[in-house]
Amino acid sequence: MRKKTLDDVLRSTWNAVSKMYNREASKFDSTMATGFALLNIEPEGTPSTSLGPKLGMESTSLSRLLNSMEEKKLIKRVPNPKDGRGVLIFLTSFGKEKRDDSRSVVLNFNNVIEKNLTNIQIKHFIEVADCIERESKQFEHFILNNIPRNYGS
Amino acid sequence: MRKKTLDDVLRSTWNAVSKMYNREASKFDSTMATGFALLNIEPEGTPSTSLGPKLGMESTSLSRLLNSMEEKKLIKRVPNPKDGRGVLIFLTSFGKEKRDDSRSVVLNFNNVIEKNLTNIQIKHFIEVADCIERESKQFEHFILNNIPRNYGS
Repeated sequence: MRKKTLDDVLRSTWNAVSKMYNREASKFDSTMATGFALLNIEPEGTPSTSLGPKLGMESTSLSRLLNSMEEKKLIKRVPNPKDGRGVLIFLTSFGKEKRDDSRSVVLNFNNVIEKNLTNIQIKHFIEVADCIERESKQFEHFILNNIPRNYGS
Repeated sequence: MRKKTLDDVLRSTWNAVSKMYNREASKFDSTMATGFALLNIEPEGTPSTSLGPKLGMESTSLSRLLNSMEEKKLIKRVPNPKDGRGVLIFLTSFGKEKRDDSRSVVLNFNNVIEKNLTNIQIKHFIEVADCIERESKQFEHFILNNIPRNYGS
């Protein structure tokens, strides 16, 4: 049995969270991805291009998701007045209802977690997560640019 | 802009890590999922049924992954002598080589992260992650059994 690394911890925790959210969403014939998208569309409309990075999705899966959300009448796509080729995504009133449902689920879950934790635990959790995210991006930069990494001694 | 919840932090961190690992793996025509599978196959053989939960994968995606790994001659499937209907997964010698490569990548990455962190930060990170994982499973249990949750006040 190999030692658990920090990214093992991260992966298995995220797996548990996404399994739970997908299970909850499936009761309403929805998915976690739909819920997160609803929560990330601003009232004044969100450019479709800024949604991908927010949700951490590649453009093909994002456009599949947006198509399915449009079919379910959760969102509408409107040409962006500030960008001739761009599209703004808006929530329909049905979408707003569902966004409020998603928000309650997320807030309830996070409230329950936070009740079990101290402020310093939460602070350190966020610091470690930030460090992991920063280093991931740094490593990715090295990989993309074929820069040899000095792993130190 | 909504407040960042703990699961937002978790999600965006995991997204950054998996993007980086997939980028690294793609240099070798591989994927992060293949690397994690290699790292989770024991020298004495791992029952295919225990691999899914370890990797957090559903059985259809797992069997697709194992098929592709078998095609690439990274693993072989052998009938389980202790279980007539079961299958044991073994690494080939090529698979062992690739497992060692994956292990270096993972250890190097985790070493770099840990050098930036104190023991208490790491301890709290793991405690918070454990708490999130435990509560996710608890919520999932409630969802599956239709038990109304008392969100407390």
